[in-house]
Amino acid sequence: MRFTVTYRIRAADLADARARAEAVALEQTVEIPRAVVPKGYVKDEILGRVEEVGTLTEGVFQAKISYSPDSAGDEFSQFLNVVFGNSSIQQGIRVTGVEPGETMLKRFPGPRFGIRGIRARVGRAKGGMIAPVLKPMGQPPGAFAALAAGCVRGGADIIKEDHGLAGQATAPFEARVEAVAKAVARANRDHGRSAIYIPNLSGPADQIEARLRFARDAGAGGAIVMPGLLGFGMVHRIARDAGLDLPVMTHPSFLGPWVLSPDTGMDHGVIFGTLPRLAGADISVFPNVGGRFGFSAAECSQIADACRDPAGPGALTLPSPGGGMSVGRAGDMVRMYGQDVVYLLGGSLLADPPNIHLAVAAMREAVDRAEES
Amino acid sequence: MRFTVTYRIRAADLADARARAEAVALEQTVEIPRAVVPKGYVKDEILGRVEEVGTLTEGVFQAKISYSPDSAGDEFSQFLNVVFGNSSIQQGIRVTGVEPGETMLKRFPGPRFGIRGIRARVGRAKGGMIAPVLKPMGQPPGAFAALAAGCVRGGADIIKEDHGLAGQATAPFEARVEAVAKAVARANRDHGRSAIYIPNLSGPADQIEARLRFARDAGAGGAIVMPGLLGFGMVHRIARDAGLDLPVMTHPSFLGPWVLSPDTGMDHGVIFGTLPRLAGADISVFPNVGGRFGFSAAECSQIADACRDPAGPGALTLPSPGGGMSVGRAGDMVRMYGQDVVYLLGGSLLADPPNIHLAVAAMREAVDRAEES
Repeated sequence: MRFTVTYRIRAADLADARARAEAVALEQTVEIPRAVVPKGYVKDEILGRVEEVGTLTEGVFQAKISYSPDSAGDEFSQFLNVVFGNSSIQQGIRVTGVEPGETMLKRFPGPRFGIRGIRARVGRAKGGMIAPVLKPMGQPPGAFAALAAGCVRGGADIIKEDHGLAGQATAPFEARVEAVAKAVARANRDHGRSAIYIPNLSGPADQIEARLRFARDAGAGGAIVMPGLLGFGMVHRIARDAGLDLPVMTHPSFLGPWVLSPDTGMDHGVIFGTLPRLAGADISVFPNVGGRFGFSAAECSQIADACRDPAGPGALTLPSPGGGMSVGRAGDMVRMYGQDVVYLLGGSLLADPPNIHLAVAAMREAVDRAEES
Repeated sequence: MRFTVTYRIRAADLADARARAEAVALEQTVEIPRAVVPKGYVKDEILGRVEEVGTLTEGVFQAKISYSPDSAGDEFSQFLNVVFGNSSIQQGIRVTGVEPGETMLKRFPGPRFGIRGIRARVGRAKGGMIAPVLKPMGQPPGAFAALAAGCVRGGADIIKEDHGLAGQATAPFEARVEAVAKAVARANRDHGRSAIYIPNLSGPADQIEARLRFARDAGAGGAIVMPGLLGFGMVHRIARDAGLDLPVMTHPSFLGPWVLSPDTGMDHGVIFGTLPRLAGADISVFPNVGGRFGFSAAECSQIADACRDPAGPGALTLPSPGGGMSVGRAGDMVRMYGQDVVYLLGGSLLADPPNIHLAVAAMREAVDRAEES
């Protein structure tokens, strides 16, 4: 069964839109003029197929193009290469939907844990989860360990590292992960909790594998992957590995240009919802409405919907809005996102690091109260 | 010595631009409000520093922000994370320049081979190099091997694989690389040439390392890396490895949105010139003016200049315009790019695959003629 990509295309008229769609079908597969496409298997199966083209509004059209699973094989990066590799460089074409179809769903079955699995791990059967972020960079491992312990004490579900914590000499990956994992385990015992710690995956490309095993062995409860920097294929690689057994949290760093222009790139729900979920992200971080970034409520809802749509690919992904959350806004946030959500809590918690447990507890209480009302 | 990033910023006035620049300096490093930044090392060294803000034109400003090498460490992906990770998600901010400075240049010394090294390998002391592309996907290894042999016979300098050749069942990576490398070696012997074959790096993330070693052992003459799908860190990882000894050719797939809107992303010369070169790309592929993509002559020249600027980082990178080249346009192309260039030759060669050597030879002759005149 072929997979289908929906594109929104700017064109002069319907005939022009059809021509552009046919050009995309060529570009994304054989990448040669139609006249020289080899007959038989390449032309009949591999070549992208324009399934329908319709008008959305004046000058704006929608095309659905189907592709053979054979063109993608079982590599997630090659799948994306077919979805929108070279055509991403064309003006006036945006991906608005990706339907993997049965065949690709077998190869990319989605999140290993999903909402249910994450809830089981952190021991919170219902209600929004809260995830304070360890930062800023430049501090030693002990500082992050102390912050993490305070967050667990305050009632955090997930201890997330800042996506900027990498291999800085002040807190190298191994030393940091070991120190924080140990602190979280101890705080869990001391306070009767089961928070998980999710370090930020980083490192030279040839050390990533070793770092994944190190993180697992040290007791990390997942891995943050920035697909903009490490590739969506890294998400898929971790999600498929039962031996690693690590939930994946994706982070939007270095992906901004994909959504900022309405005529190019991909819809918010696709790049921060459908694709991470299909690749296997259990939690997808995105910039929240009302924070430092300009996403609208509609764009954020589109992401959350794509993460949690029961008709979407595989298990459900937890949407994780970052920024814009405070005790005062908890009510609004609960009304907007419901209960299956992970709230990132950033710099606002860090006014008084030794008492971070109080700030986390206040946020927990605000979310609980909002959910009950 | 700190590294410096130049941003073009939309703002209401100079004061607003300064405020936006200060926000970027925070966002890209500590990611917490200024009031809670820890004093001492974090505030004095790690925090981004706005060095200057000036007016470009009405509503458009330029800011230079310097960052500590300590914030990036020695990981290329973390370096990019600091350059423009989260701020890439802001409207109205574009990276127009990256100056690594001495300290980062020691960590990221640029291409291992550069223009001189590639010329030595392919045995062409001067003149533009030509690189026919093996495609389309969906064919067996033998078909690509035959095409490759024909290209060598016709006088190709580099046999490049299509970026869409991955792990398709019709031509799995190992079988294909082995067959093509063997065919190229034999054709080199038969015709007294020294063309190099550059396969497309692909595969599940945890098999990339093994594939790199396989390619080297099979006799491949380089590796194509798509930074949009595998990350710029992969370029750096290969370029730094004397044991692999593989030139790197970067390909623009899945990077389009970075350049398409003038107010976001990065300038063409940065994402297709400065960054690949700093990461260690010996050859940087980009869509040529006059081809299927909409890049202007000025944008393509900006890329070529960034690749070859003697004042840029490390050895010089070969610009490699893809598309838009033909026997008829050879004169224009030579006038535009000069001699230190690799012309990709795509679908136009494939009208008569068994006689591809004639099409390649005709292109070689056209380039030679244009260079002599």
